[in-house]
Order: sequence, then C-alpha cells, then structure tokens
Amino acid sequence: MKRYRNGEIWDFEHETPVSEDRPVILGLDGGTTSTVCICMPVLPFSNPLPDPLPVLARAVAGCSNHNSVGETAARETLEQVMADALSKSGSNRSAVQAVCLAVSGVNHPTDEQRILNWLRDIFPIHVKLYVQNDAVAALASGTMGKLHGCVLIAGTGTIAYGFTEDGREARAAGAGPILGDWGSGYGIAAQALTAVVRAHDGRGPETILTNSILQELDLCSPDELIGWTYADPSWARIAALVPVVVSCAEAGDEVANKILQDSVEELALSVKAVVQKLDLCGEDGNASFPLVMVGGVLEANKRWDIGKEVVNCISEDYPGALPIRPKVTTIQFLPTISFLIFIFLFFE
Amino acid sequence: MKRYRNGEIWDFEHETPVSEDRPVILGLDGGTTSTVCICMPVLPFSNPLPDPLPVLARAVAGCSNHNSVGETAARETLEQVMADALSKSGSNRSAVQAVCLAVSGVNHPTDEQRILNWLRDIFPIHVKLYVQNDAVAALASGTMGKLHGCVLIAGTGTIAYGFTEDGREARAAGAGPILGDWGSGYGIAAQALTAVVRAHDGRGPETILTNSILQELDLCSPDELIGWTYADPSWARIAALVPVVVSCAEAGDEVANKILQDSVEELALSVKAVVQKLDLCGEDGNASFPLVMVGGVLEANKRWDIGKEVVNCISEDYPGALPIRPKVTTIQFLPTISFLIFIFLFFE
Repeated sequence: MKRYRNGEIWDFEHETPVSEDRPVILGLDGGTTSTVCICMPVLPFSNPLPDPLPVLARAVAGCSNHNSVGETAARETLEQVMADALSKSGSNRSAVQAVCLAVSGVNHPTDEQRILNWLRDIFPIHVKLYVQNDAVAALASGTMGKLHGCVLIAGTGTIAYGFTEDGREARAAGAGPILGDWGSGYGIAAQALTAVVRAHDGRGPETILTNSILQELDLCSPDELIGWTYADPSWARIAALVPVVVSCAEAGDEVANKILQDSVEELALSVKAVVQKLDLCGEDGNASFPLVMVGGVLEANKRWDIGKEVVNCISEDYPGALPIRPKVTTIQFLPTISFLIFIFLFFE
Repeated sequence: MKRYRNGEIWDFEHETPVSEDRPVILGLDGGTTSTVCICMPVLPFSNPLPDPLPVLARAVAGCSNHNSVGETAARETLEQVMADALSKSGSNRSAVQAVCLAVSGVNHPTDEQRILNWLRDIFPIHVKLYVQNDAVAALASGTMGKLHGCVLIAGTGTIAYGFTEDGREARAAGAGPILGDWGSGYGIAAQALTAVVRAHDGRGPETILTNSILQELDLCSPDELIGWTYADPSWARIAALVPVVVSCAEAGDEVANKILQDSVEELALSVKAVVQKLDLCGEDGNASFPLVMVGGVLEANKRWDIGKEVVNCISEDYPGALPIRPKVTTIQFLPTISFLIFIFLFFE
C-alpha cells in the first residue's frame, strides 16, 4: 500500500483518529453522470437483507467513466470518493476488507485489469478487490442480488446486460456515443441539438426544440450551439437536456416525438439482442425473466413515458419479460443500494 | 507585439539573420486533419495569377479546429505553423504585412474575434489580419478567387458554404460530429465502427467491415474497439478509416454500401439547403452556378466515387450545378493554393 499516493486524498488518515477498529467494505457504483461510494460494516449474509442496510457513510462525486472524461480524471474521482466515504465513516484503509467497484466503461478484461492494478496500489495486499461493469450491480439491485435476467440502464449512457441462471452472460450497446448508443440520454439530447442545427440551416423541419433548448442554455442563436457543444466534452452535460426533449414531445412537437420514439426502439433492441443471445425467453419464447429498468431516461415521471414504451416494445416479442423498476425512487440513491446488494452477493 | 510570447516558438527570430527585408504575407488553411501555412512576397494583383505562385516557404502541421482538439492545442498549432513558415522563408514577424487565416471551426463572430485578439498579441499593430471559415478559401480555390457559387468540403469534417454575386452568404452542416455532420469522413467511419459493434452484440447484420476494420487497427475483437475509440478523441483518427469502408462497399458489403449511400444523401442535402437559401439556381431553377468540391471523401480515386454520386444527386434537383474539382491533385497541397488565391482576392 502506497500510504502517500495522491497525498491530499489520504491525508485524513493521519489527521483523524479512527473511531473504532471495525472491519468495513467499500461499495462503489460509478456512472457517467455521478459516482456513489458507500462504506458499510462486514456482516454475516442474511436473506432477506437487513432493512435498512447498515450504511456507515456515503459519498458522492461526478463522472468516473474513463471513456467520457479520460483515465486520469476517472481514477482521481474514484479514489477521492472512496477516501471521502472512509473518512466520513471514521475508518481508514487499514479497516477495509473488500472493495467492490461497479463502473460504467468497464467493457473489456483490460479495463478491469487496469483498475485492479491501480486499486492494488492503494489498498493493503489482503483486501479483496472486485471490478465489474455497473450494469451487473444494477441487475442485482432489481433482483435482490440474484444474477438472472436482463437489466437495461438508460441514463447518460445505455447498456443492456443479461445473465442466465447457469452463469452465461451477454451484453448489447454500452459502447458510448461515438459507437451508436443512440437510445441513451446523451443520444436523445445530441439528436435534439442536431435537429435544431438542421432546422436552422435548412436541412430539417422546424421544431420547438429550437426555442426550448436555446432558452434552457441561455443562448441567442442556433449558431451558438456549436461553441456550447464543443466547449466541454462531458457526456452528462449534453444528456442533461433530455427533460427539454420530453417536454417538447409532450407539447406535440413531431421532431422531438420522433427522437423519443427512435430511442424507445433502440433501447428495446438492445434488450431483445441480449434476450435472444441468452435464450432468456425459453424454447417456446414465452418463458418469464426479470427485466430490470434503471436510469433517468426510464423514470416514469412524465406523460411521455419512455420506460413504459420500451417495455411495450419488448413485450411484443417477449411476453415473458417481467419489468422491475427497483423500489428506490431517487436516482441519486439508487446506485448505492444497487451496490450494497451486489456486495452481499459476493460475500454470500 | 509580445516578442517573447511562447518563447520557443519565436526563438528563431533571434537566432537566424533575416535574409532580406522583403514584405511578406502569411496565408493559412487550417483543417481538422492538417494545417498548411505559406509565406509569400507581397505582389501587385494580376489577372491571371502568376503561375507558379511565388511561394517562399510552406509549413505543415496537424489539426487546428478548436472544436476537435480544444482551444489551447489549436492555438499552439496555428502559432507554430506560422512561425515555421516564416522561419523557413528566412523572414520574421517584422516583415509581415498581412495574416490570412482560413480555419475550420470558425462558425460564429465570437470564434473569429477570439482568434483576431490572439493574433493581435502575436503580430505588430500595422499587420492586417483576416480570419474566415476554411470553406471560404476552398470556394475561392475553385473559382479562381471569385466568391460566387457553393463549395462542399467533405474531409474529416464537412460543410457547405455559398455566396451570391451580390455578397449574400449561407452555410449548412459544419457543426461537427456531435451535431449531425453524418456525411463527413468522421461520420462515415463512426457509422462503420458502430455497425461493427452492432453486428457483434446482435443488434445489426453481419458485415465484412468487422474483419477489415479490426485488421486495419490491429485489434482482435470488436470489444476492443471501445477502448480504441475513446483512447484518443481526435476526429481525424476516426476519419482515417474511410478508405476501409469504401473498400468494403466495393467488395459488395451491403452495410458499408448503405453507409456511403447515406453519406451521399447527407452531403447533397447540405448543398441543396445552401442553393435554396441563396436562390443560386435562379427563378426557373435552372440557372448555372459553380459547385466546388473539396476534400478527401470527394476525391475520385475509387470505383465507389462518393463525389460523383453527390453531384448526380444534386443535379437531379439543380441541373445548373457546375461541378469544379480544383485542379491541384494532392489534397496536401490544395489548402495552400486555396489560400494563396484567397489572399490575392483580399489584396485586389
């Protein structure tokens, strides 16, 4: 353990006395918009899980998807949020038994290995380390820890991830905006911005997205959108425009409506690809399987309900899909719970 | 003039004696793939232009589109390439009479003003400064300096730009990849990469793009494309895959063929929008106008000739379009010539 790695981040370990010498676990859910880390005591596994879960501390930070903000920034965010959670709980690294990271942007064994190597540098050698794509934690959050079925995440990014009961897994999408995640919050918002540019330069139909988006961003003309867009490459900043698109669609704008309709088809297609690959619907096509729906784009808080439309679209092909929206209602708190459950799973 | 701004860049002015005290002009064409700066003596305007043009020195650098590589990197590239051209020509900044920058990514008066402010810091107060979108220089390169008609650039990025004889102007596209420049080299390549990901995860049809692109990039699996794509955000790096897409289309791949066909329609749509806005085709719709075609995507060096298809598509609606491919054959040298002509125009 490099005790002085990133000096300031771990300075609290020398400044604050440890309140008690209890072993703890760090659970982290890292997304493209926000990252949440919780610190909890090591408990014997129980089913059902203790309610409420015994969270010692919780810390929140921004994007930790290395594909969006780059390796260095993502790593610093992850390290800082873990230190914050430990510091708030009155613990330090010597009390940590396990670190479980579920991070968006972990797409390949090399991504996992890179994060593991770096965690190994931060924590003592006996600490157990787990790194996964955040979709795995999200699935567990809807199935109370059981990795079976399919999860669809649609927030700033989107991914569909599935597991069979015998442990096979498959995924679709989750490749980021350059590689066609058009159903994501980023995808919806980028298409809305594009529609404004196209209406302005004569390549597309007029749309009330123009006035609504310019007003939201406090800009005077569509020409200014170019500067605004490229001034900051953060995906979450673009995706934050999704509610404007939904409002315009609800107001009857055809362009906005088409963007949301396309998003529904894209999101449903991701799920269908996973279901088909894993035969989750059984031989007759009617077997039931959990379909966990997570993320801001799928929240049922609007008249134009993207999540509901996605379920309808999936159910046409796979009537056995059992939609589950994890009960935690605020998206900000959801990742924490997701990961807690995921941790329990590992310590089963 | 800050003589010591960016110390190393201008160090040559103190190290190398000036060969002669002749007044010079700097002309620069800055694109998303490369940037070319030439240094030439101030000459009386003549028509026709002297052939060959009296270029004293020429320097080449990478991307100077601030939307692609960020403000700081773009500025440094521009400053370095101007210093290189001056140094190679045996001149220095005290001999410069005018600086004419045609740079992609200049979309709004604030972009122009930002570059002018910064140029003002570098050059003596009497130096005349001109900043324009690079499409203007490209148009002039095809019309021997006359700003009339429409230019279509399709390289890493794409833009259509037009002028009427009485000085009105209009543009379409040129808003970069996030804002829908799907017909560009970047757009073509990003859609090809997306097609590979979609085929791999079950959302799209099989395509020979998969093997061709993986081989080109020396990767083993489509999963590795995600890491490759986001490791470096340069648009030119993605766009460099266009020849692979063209080869696959020529080999009969339907997915690649569809991507190129869509690109043709997008590029033609940009031109049509400009022609319509400016009434370049006259009241009867049949008036003739120059259509200058510039950029790697439009080069007629393949069986699948994107440029030819674009012209066909435009001619269906506007039979008066007179396609002009500037005679300079190597794309690397084209921007220089473009801008030289542009400079002559200013000094007329």
